[in-house]
Amino acid sequence: MAHTIDTEVFQAFSTYATIVILKMMLMAPLTAYFRITRKAFANFEDTMGKTTEEKKKTVRVNEDVERVRRCHQNDLENIIPFVVIGLLYALTGPDLSIALLHFRLFVGSRFVHTVAYVMVLPQPSRALSWMVGMVITFSMAYRVLTTVLLL
Amino acid sequence: MAHTIDTEVFQAFSTYATIVILKMMLMAPLTAYFRITRKAFANFEDTMGKTTEEKKKTVRVNEDVERVRRCHQNDLENIIPFVVIGLLYALTGPDLSIALLHFRLFVGSRFVHTVAYVMVLPQPSRALSWMVGMVITFSMAYRVLTTVLLL
Amino acid sequence: MAHTIDTEVFQAFSTYATIVILKMMLMAPLTAYFRITRKAFANFEDTMGKTTEEKKKTVRVNEDVERVRRCHQNDLENIIPFVVIGLLYALTGPDLSIALLHFRLFVGSRFVHTVAYVMVLPQPSRALSWMVGMVITFSMAYRVLTTVLLL
Repeated sequence: MAHTIDTEVFQAFSTYATIVILKMMLMAPLTAYFRITRKAFANFEDTMGKTTEEKKKTVRVNEDVERVRRCHQNDLENIIPFVVIGLLYALTGPDLSIALLHFRLFVGSRFVHTVAYVMVLPQPSRALSWMVGMVITFSMAYRVLTTVLLL
Repeated sequence: MAHTIDTEVFQAFSTYATIVILKMMLMAPLTAYFRITRKAFANFEDTMGKTTEEKKKTVRVNEDVERVRRCHQNDLENIIPFVVIGLLYALTGPDLSIALLHFRLFVGSRFVHTVAYVMVLPQPSRALSWMVGMVITFSMAYRVLTTVLLL
Repeated sequence: MAHTIDTEVFQAFSTYATIVILKMMLMAPLTAYFRITRKAFANFEDTMGKTTEEKKKTVRVNEDVERVRRCHQNDLENIIPFVVIGLLYALTGPDLSIALLHFRLFVGSRFVHTVAYVMVLPQPSRALSWMVGMVITFSMAYRVLTTVLLL
């Protein structure tokens, strides 16, 4: 596994990992946007309004906000495993074309997943995009385990 | 910290990190299994039922589903710190036997934690397994900080 | 990107990443502290009390507990992207002084964020500390993408 950190595969991994992490981070401003437009805040000190009474009423749960938060949570549960296993995978020295196929499919699937979740596209669009991401990560994990297995 | 990425310690880390991340990822299908058998969904478009009325009733919170979700969340909060600090720890060049002890105990403790959480084993089984994982990660963090400290 | 894993930048990254991950992990004992003092537990097997009736009453949601949990969640959503992008950034070989500026500002901003969240400091203290962290991570992501871009 030596001397592979300067390879094109590692550069490709760095590129796609950064892009998909940035996508995940953008869920936070999106949540803020929905909290403000739907007037549904999690903390009293975040609320906007003239009177205390008005402010208190906006500390509440809103379904549109919760939807974005579930999408963000799903990103955490899927993108971070991709980044961890993808890093180890890149260090096993796979073919560039095969590695690119993995990275592109994963990142593409997560963009589709976000659009399907936030825009409430009919199923199985969201389920399928989620599954593509899972399969890609499992495929990379399989290569890592078969290459470096040391228990 | 140079030239250690091709060591046996790094291979051991790659193996155990991949295994424990895969374990974490399997919480998602487990959540789906409980959502379907308990008929408790988070999104209207995920529901199954003949009429809209029937579907609406299955958008609800179920305690068994929430339990698996809390377990998944606990994995995120503990396994990801292990992976990050474990990677840096592996690069400090520890003894293989000591590193293996850390990795095996951590991964073992997280499997026990999941069984204790999902099967509702009496406390302190879950608390102890969680604490073992925390102590292991702190132990690795201690070595990282004492080896490479540059503030 | 070769031969940079033994640099001072990587040592600085290892130090700050470990510190900020430890900070994140300490949110778990803090949550436990609030759960015990507020007598608000998530699982029946965690409760303390003499009778089953008393125990059942302590399986409940408490605002102070939820506040710490939201702070922990915000850490997951921001610190993990910092660690991933910071690792790739450290491998691009930036100037040590500029890298240290990024790492120190980020870690400092997250400590301020935690204090502002848990102590309920008036806004915009929490919003600003969160934004500093986001900008730092975006700045590192910009360097990663402009240095290694391979799509």
